[in-house]
Amino acid sequence: MDVERLNDLARLSLNQATTKRWTLAEAAEGCARAGIPWIGVWRDRLAEVGATQAARIVRDAGLRVSGLCRGGMFPAAAASERQARIDDNLRAVEEAATIGTDTLVLVCGPSPDRDIRAARTMVEEGIRAVVPYATECGVRLAVEPLHPMFAGDRSVIASLREANDLVEKIGSPQVGVIVDAYHLWWDVELEAQVARAAGHICGYHVSDWIVPLPDVLLGRGMMGDGVIELRRIRTLVETAGYSGPIEVEIFNQAFWDAPGDEVLALMCRRFLACV
Amino acid sequence: MDVERLNDLARLSLNQATTKRWTLAEAAEGCARAGIPWIGVWRDRLAEVGATQAARIVRDAGLRVSGLCRGGMFPAAAASERQARIDDNLRAVEEAATIGTDTLVLVCGPSPDRDIRAARTMVEEGIRAVVPYATECGVRLAVEPLHPMFAGDRSVIASLREANDLVEKIGSPQVGVIVDAYHLWWDVELEAQVARAAGHICGYHVSDWIVPLPDVLLGRGMMGDGVIELRRIRTLVETAGYSGPIEVEIFNQAFWDAPGDEVLALMCRRFLACV
Repeated sequence: MDVERLNDLARLSLNQATTKRWTLAEAAEGCARAGIPWIGVWRDRLAEVGATQAARIVRDAGLRVSGLCRGGMFPAAAASERQARIDDNLRAVEEAATIGTDTLVLVCGPSPDRDIRAARTMVEEGIRAVVPYATECGVRLAVEPLHPMFAGDRSVIASLREANDLVEKIGSPQVGVIVDAYHLWWDVELEAQVARAAGHICGYHVSDWIVPLPDVLLGRGMMGDGVIELRRIRTLVETAGYSGPIEVEIFNQAFWDAPGDEVLALMCRRFLACV
Repeated sequence: MDVERLNDLARLSLNQATTKRWTLAEAAEGCARAGIPWIGVWRDRLAEVGATQAARIVRDAGLRVSGLCRGGMFPAAAASERQARIDDNLRAVEEAATIGTDTLVLVCGPSPDRDIRAARTMVEEGIRAVVPYATECGVRLAVEPLHPMFAGDRSVIASLREANDLVEKIGSPQVGVIVDAYHLWWDVELEAQVARAAGHICGYHVSDWIVPLPDVLLGRGMMGDGVIELRRIRTLVETAGYSGPIEVEIFNQAFWDAPGDEVLALMCRRFLACV
């Protein structure tokens, strides 16, 4: 297969989850020192300074924002709680616009009970309720299908097929998907579903799958340390027309405990060598 | 939805993995005491006594064997090693026939490297190589798609769609699938793929998915303790024409450490109440 190495860091984005202990300012400065041009911002770190100041921090560091994490979490047992979740997503849309990204990542949420089909309907209803304001703000709602091991506690949207179904059903240009190699690498339908997502891929996230998996939540690996065919998946995503930033999102306690600058240096090397 | 409670234990099978510390004789006696009519046998416990003696143990306890675990593990880097895996599957077919079951469960194996597509081809080739002898012995090769969190270390066959694709491609009446609720509950395609499997469902396995997942390998729950819609899935499987034994297969250290008779008593109650 004809897969080119990335020659520079122009498309690299640090998702803040990779350096969880850093504030937004620390992460932005770290990216500037490392030559990383993009950052994926998390709402908890944005909230510490407010969206306007967050935008200034990122701009002053010379960075662009690849996406805001995260909206979603739509299903809830009570209608009032579902409305509260929608309201929170509206705030997230506003924050995304303020910080200067067109992409709000949606982790759609688990079911409040055993009825996963009802929860899926709640996700669809939730996204539909947010679309008008997202359109007004020029922010895309990017459904991130999570690995099926998170179907019980984080996202009932557990495959790219399902995310594509949802996007096509809603039928708004403002709704798309995130392709995350860690969540999707195992899927025999990966090639077909990435091709199907052409035109609505809002982001590409990478990390690696360690064997055996060290931990359900905090076991993600650095690119090159696991079994994912990262180059092949990048080619699929690019063939589908995506040429935007590539976020490195690694939930891993060992990296959280390590000095941030060292993590970023390793991340840059591996991005060039493996992604 | 019209789902009937199970009124008796006539379809209940103890998969030996649930009482891992018991020998085959201990498990068979435990089933007899608990009124469980079926047992799913593991090859390591069969090997301790030999297949002929294992058949006698099961028969003397008045049990029937719902399946033998497990064949599979086909992918390997070297051709000689792949042949060794095939030879081992031929022995497993013979053991299944000897112990009196028509079902050999296949856990198809992980990839020896990052090329998951090549590994999937090795699985297909491996199964094809075993079909003639399985046909001769009257043993069905039952592909068990595992949860995608095992795609890196246990099975590149990670969805029922993929297992159905494989079964249809091979096209032998001797090859079918196992539907395991724990591995498949999250799949938006579950209903469609179980319906598609009509005519080649060789077994139905149950346990439950605890939230949050306590452990990747040993975190399976007792039916009723998790979030899986077990009744709905049983109805799907029955609507597809399966009316055979229902195996309870729970990998969980706490149950392994508990007295076997207590585990079986709880299992019987939950089977009647939740499955």
